[in-house]
Amino acid sequence: MKIGILGGGQLGGMLIRHAIDFGLRISVMDKDANAPCARYTSSFTLGSPTSYEDVLNFGKGLDVITIEMEAVNIDALRELEKQGVKVFPRPDTIAVIQDKYTQKQFLLSHNIPVVPGVAVDNKNDLLKLENKLPGCLKKRRDGYDGYGVMVLKTAADIEKAFDAPSVLEELVDIKNEIAVIVGRNEQGEVKCYDPVMMVFSEEKFVLEFQEAPAQIDEAIRNEAFALAEKIADALQLVGILAVEMFITRDGKLIVNELAPRPHNSGHHTIEASTTSQYEQLLRAILGLPLGDTSLRFPSLMMNILETEALSIDRQGKFHRLLEVPGAHLHWYGKKGIRLGRKVGHITITDNTIEGTLAKADTIRKILN
Amino acid sequence: MKIGILGGGQLGGMLIRHAIDFGLRISVMDKDANAPCARYTSSFTLGSPTSYEDVLNFGKGLDVITIEMEAVNIDALRELEKQGVKVFPRPDTIAVIQDKYTQKQFLLSHNIPVVPGVAVDNKNDLLKLENKLPGCLKKRRDGYDGYGVMVLKTAADIEKAFDAPSVLEELVDIKNEIAVIVGRNEQGEVKCYDPVMMVFSEEKFVLEFQEAPAQIDEAIRNEAFALAEKIADALQLVGILAVEMFITRDGKLIVNELAPRPHNSGHHTIEASTTSQYEQLLRAILGLPLGDTSLRFPSLMMNILETEALSIDRQGKFHRLLEVPGAHLHWYGKKGIRLGRKVGHITITDNTIEGTLAKADTIRKILN
Repeated sequence: MKIGILGGGQLGGMLIRHAIDFGLRISVMDKDANAPCARYTSSFTLGSPTSYEDVLNFGKGLDVITIEMEAVNIDALRELEKQGVKVFPRPDTIAVIQDKYTQKQFLLSHNIPVVPGVAVDNKNDLLKLENKLPGCLKKRRDGYDGYGVMVLKTAADIEKAFDAPSVLEELVDIKNEIAVIVGRNEQGEVKCYDPVMMVFSEEKFVLEFQEAPAQIDEAIRNEAFALAEKIADALQLVGILAVEMFITRDGKLIVNELAPRPHNSGHHTIEASTTSQYEQLLRAILGLPLGDTSLRFPSLMMNILETEALSIDRQGKFHRLLEVPGAHLHWYGKKGIRLGRKVGHITITDNTIEGTLAKADTIRKILN
Repeated sequence: MKIGILGGGQLGGMLIRHAIDFGLRISVMDKDANAPCARYTSSFTLGSPTSYEDVLNFGKGLDVITIEMEAVNIDALRELEKQGVKVFPRPDTIAVIQDKYTQKQFLLSHNIPVVPGVAVDNKNDLLKLENKLPGCLKKRRDGYDGYGVMVLKTAADIEKAFDAPSVLEELVDIKNEIAVIVGRNEQGEVKCYDPVMMVFSEEKFVLEFQEAPAQIDEAIRNEAFALAEKIADALQLVGILAVEMFITRDGKLIVNELAPRPHNSGHHTIEASTTSQYEQLLRAILGLPLGDTSLRFPSLMMNILETEALSIDRQGKFHRLLEVPGAHLHWYGKKGIRLGRKVGHITITDNTIEGTLAKADTIRKILN
């Protein structure tokens, strides 16, 4: 089986990690010759996942094509599907999700609660929506890791707003943010991973850590599963989908955003779950039975962002970090140094949640 | 860091799996362009690990070179070391181990109990050793997976014996066979994995399954650790070493064989241990602290040998196999079909040893 991945970042790298388990041949296309994946395949293509020509050429001769990013050329994927290449997730699924407003409308049409929001075409449109502030402005397309998201508190903030098609969302009074990863195969089998709790630092939109299992009520947990499964079915998903949800102060669950691909809210599944999200994706797109999603022990995931301290003493910090038992380093090996960039993550495992939190404290001190 | 692996088989593939976690660049040399590793690196060299020229050319420009097989050219590795490339395990360590008789003499010189054996140069030599039969004849070099090993019951068997430098070993009255993987880094830090128990089928030398933890007395367990650590120190090991040991009927531990590289007795560490043997090897050769070797839960490892039944209905069997929760498939993706060849393995995890045995029964039925 020849499998292609559009996008060659760390998510693709972790997917290759698990493709090795099944002896699969993986081809990768990315617009950066130094993408993390490029060194882990004999079949790397330099090209843009958003280019019709590039995607079409890349896909010819593959058995299955999948994604590790949403910003891909849907028309080319539809054409490849016509030519007999399996495209999972389906082009229609990606198309719905890659535009944050279309995504919201789709969910609403299936009676899924979402964060209320209105579409704007440009900065000028925002001027007519002063009465909707404060709000959260998100670019309709291509946002990731906090890029393409900003809070507009007052009309004065509109000046520095994105001048691009965006969604202005209500600021929801959030108690917690959780995420569920759901897998679904062509036969319609569906399986969810336990919700993870996302804990953000005071500077908004920067994830401090993620905990699994999320410490939430059983009722909310079951509702989160039901929502994730309903969305997977509605999307006719083949693959995996991250469903980010808010738990409001009054205990309601509403969907924040979807990602139809491996997602950082599933990083911990490599070490802490019976089947990793990456293996689950491979199982789903190859028509294999979905794997057991049980969480084996508590885990905590922290991103590593490039800092000056880290760039100066990387070896020393890694050395001390790797002395912590159950600290699993994932270093993405990105080229060059750009402060603030996500360059790795650490999954911490322990027999207790308290144990993971204590180790996280130790590691935070080492990294800073 | 640029790391090279001599040998491109499944062990190298699993090493790449874990090299992705540290963002490392891996180069591989193998004499087969279709070696399992070849598809998981952008830096594959076709060449023979036993050729002086090939190894020398491959090693130039690498920071560290390691092995996934013992049959490598020691002279070239010594030359590379002189040129400043780190070679781990050290050429001297590999040289001692790659010859089964030298290995035995080395262990004896360090007062390590071994299976008694005498060296023979060829078939003729055996005729003078009739009084030592029955015995186990092993080629001094290049045996693996039961190849290069045979039992000689009577003088009549000598006719079909290997006509090559070999060791004729006494047949030991074995109660159990266990293995310990030990890691050691340049700083001299040493860590052992829990012993695994190897269970063989009635046709000799074919492993039926491996259990971790081995159900053995605490005293034997501690003695096994002490032996493994003593050997690692004696060899000035930098890397990992599998120490296969026999427990005799009268409760003594004696060393059977060594392998200074990732080994099938550590396959289960991917899923069942905090740090896999592959990550441990990378930590050891990069001068990083060794990882926690704790066993997280019981596991059982079964090799998959190519059979006619498997070659006819591979997809169907995989499908049923992957329905078993906690059955972790590792399919090596070897090219072509050769009956009896090792083509993959399955690690089974469960919360109890009984659970792993029950799942193993299910899987054995599926594969046959």
